[in-house]
Amino acid sequence: MSGCGFSIGAVDGAARTGLLVTAHGEVPTPAFMPVGTAATVKAMTPEAVEATGARMVLGNTYHLMLRPGAERVERLGGLHRFMHWPGPILTDSGGFQVMSLSKLRKMDETGVTFQSHLDGSSHLLTPERSMAIQRQLDADITMAFDECTPFPASPEQAAQSMRLSMRWAARSREAFVARPGYGLFGIVQGGVYPELRAESAAQLLALGFDGYAVGGLAVGEGQAEMFRVLDVTVPLLPADRPRYLMGVGKPSDIVGAVCRGIDMFDCVLPTRSGRTGQAFTRHGTVNIRNARHQDDPRPLDALCGCPACVHYSRAYLHHLAKAEEVLGLMLLTWHNLHYYQDLMRGLRDAITAGRLGDFARDALAAEAAGDIEPL
Amino acid sequence: MSGCGFSIGAVDGAARTGLLVTAHGEVPTPAFMPVGTAATVKAMTPEAVEATGARMVLGNTYHLMLRPGAERVERLGGLHRFMHWPGPILTDSGGFQVMSLSKLRKMDETGVTFQSHLDGSSHLLTPERSMAIQRQLDADITMAFDECTPFPASPEQAAQSMRLSMRWAARSREAFVARPGYGLFGIVQGGVYPELRAESAAQLLALGFDGYAVGGLAVGEGQAEMFRVLDVTVPLLPADRPRYLMGVGKPSDIVGAVCRGIDMFDCVLPTRSGRTGQAFTRHGTVNIRNARHQDDPRPLDALCGCPACVHYSRAYLHHLAKAEEVLGLMLLTWHNLHYYQDLMRGLRDAITAGRLGDFARDALAAEAAGDIEPL
Repeated sequence: MSGCGFSIGAVDGAARTGLLVTAHGEVPTPAFMPVGTAATVKAMTPEAVEATGARMVLGNTYHLMLRPGAERVERLGGLHRFMHWPGPILTDSGGFQVMSLSKLRKMDETGVTFQSHLDGSSHLLTPERSMAIQRQLDADITMAFDECTPFPASPEQAAQSMRLSMRWAARSREAFVARPGYGLFGIVQGGVYPELRAESAAQLLALGFDGYAVGGLAVGEGQAEMFRVLDVTVPLLPADRPRYLMGVGKPSDIVGAVCRGIDMFDCVLPTRSGRTGQAFTRHGTVNIRNARHQDDPRPLDALCGCPACVHYSRAYLHHLAKAEEVLGLMLLTWHNLHYYQDLMRGLRDAITAGRLGDFARDALAAEAAGDIEPL
Repeated sequence: MSGCGFSIGAVDGAARTGLLVTAHGEVPTPAFMPVGTAATVKAMTPEAVEATGARMVLGNTYHLMLRPGAERVERLGGLHRFMHWPGPILTDSGGFQVMSLSKLRKMDETGVTFQSHLDGSSHLLTPERSMAIQRQLDADITMAFDECTPFPASPEQAAQSMRLSMRWAARSREAFVARPGYGLFGIVQGGVYPELRAESAAQLLALGFDGYAVGGLAVGEGQAEMFRVLDVTVPLLPADRPRYLMGVGKPSDIVGAVCRGIDMFDCVLPTRSGRTGQAFTRHGTVNIRNARHQDDPRPLDALCGCPACVHYSRAYLHHLAKAEEVLGLMLLTWHNLHYYQDLMRGLRDAITAGRLGDFARDALAAEAAGDIEPL
């Protein structure tokens, strides 16, 4: 397969730094990908996204196929050009969001028939169609089409779902058109059951992918259970290929997963939280709408180099949130993405320096702290 | 009065270029001030506002006194620091918005008692209180407190309203604390009646202000009537002081008013229009939500240097508007403000070159054009 490149840099325990090389550029790992669902990272210009240090963003196949349509994006030169993000893009397969967002689904061996949440129009998503759409979008990393196993699921349900996803993975692998710099990732399923995870990983390895994702987590099982699944799953994945934990997560989730050998992450948490007035800081999570901030001249996070922290007081950010001003969404989103990228930089530096244990301990202490005390 | 400075550069007919010098910087005129109602130009960072070429923004006393409160802004270092806009700021007096936004008003010789549109709390705004608030905000240009005469108004109503505003102007003048670089502007009222405009101008000149605004226009009288009022009012104002047409307007309003000797403008039109998908362009006004744009790879305005035009297609801007993405508000607002500042740059250059007539003719033709034709 002439897909994306990946090389390992430093190693610290199970964790490693790496460099993912794609058609549209390089991504130092461990990496966090901001979510650009509808061809935009919400409330951010691409220049601002890049300024946070992000090198790769995620696009959602489900949203983009419905609006503006994958054929249209292709005609307009692909997703990079359309959204003015010249760097690498990973697209999901649409499988997860068909289940969580659309109505009147019918699922069979072929794929999923669903109604658009926008206009009720009917659509069919199959492994072959998902591959075609992700190619039209020109994704650097394409994800295999899978079913997201519901949680909780019995061993029988989880096995049935995982085996369908593995048959779909084989069809995805077959339908994907290899091009230099473009990769296809398989997704390990199997719920919380180690033997099912092992069966899934073995099947994917037999097919051969450019990278391996761990799917079906962060769906309600809790952090301890998620880490337990990673503990039994990651060692089954090839060391020389990137590993991607989908839809994760809180800073402590990311730290714990990096310590267990995960290289890539995506999550709506920093962007969505920013739009509701929640900020991640080195002093814990801050709800900027809280009245305690209304007279506070201090920055949100004195050690943060983002514009929200360098140029503005908590009092001003509080005012913007209360007044429901767009700039409030913009600045808190920017801050949260900057905070996440600082975390990833810190993780990469710590792995390189062989001090990941210390770094992880400090990072977890920050998340455990409460809202900032008043002056 | 040790107020703001103003010097005339070139003159072309009644129009002139000038330089307004304030405590927080210089403003080449004719100038358009973006409106930053609640201590933010909606959907724009201050850096983006500055990048459009804007050198002065407007803040609204009514909004800021209610939220976050003028005393709070003062404690936090003034409006410039609070909103991270180091350049000049003009604040209105609150008079206009008390009448248009608040409930249960009681107006007498003293001032206006009103209920906040936010929480129903009761407030009194007087000339003295307006001056104190604008000083707390640290406005470079303070506006005298006046009543905005309703439209239509009989000669008797307009006379009564104007004379109250003139008594309030005298009280504003008395209460204003002069500081170097800080100016107080009087506001000519009198509705559409030339003799009342003349009486108002004479009274203001007798009091002596750093600049003179023309108020009570763009309230429904139409462009022709507005220009007629300017034709009889502007010649009554001192040539060596800046002239400010409040709340105006469309590009053609601005062009016509500059030709009649106006130096300063503010209006929510470019920002508010941008948030509803309306764009001002050299080809006329564009409604980007129109389906004709959905496949259009061309920029909004090929001659515009703003990020929305340099980096994105009409198809993408259409997509953002349909998907109600925050970036759509950001980019169209940026474009419209850039367009307005291009217009002001063009007007200043045309006056300097002695070719304002030609420039005005071309600018009016652009506004008269309809929505852009499809490819």
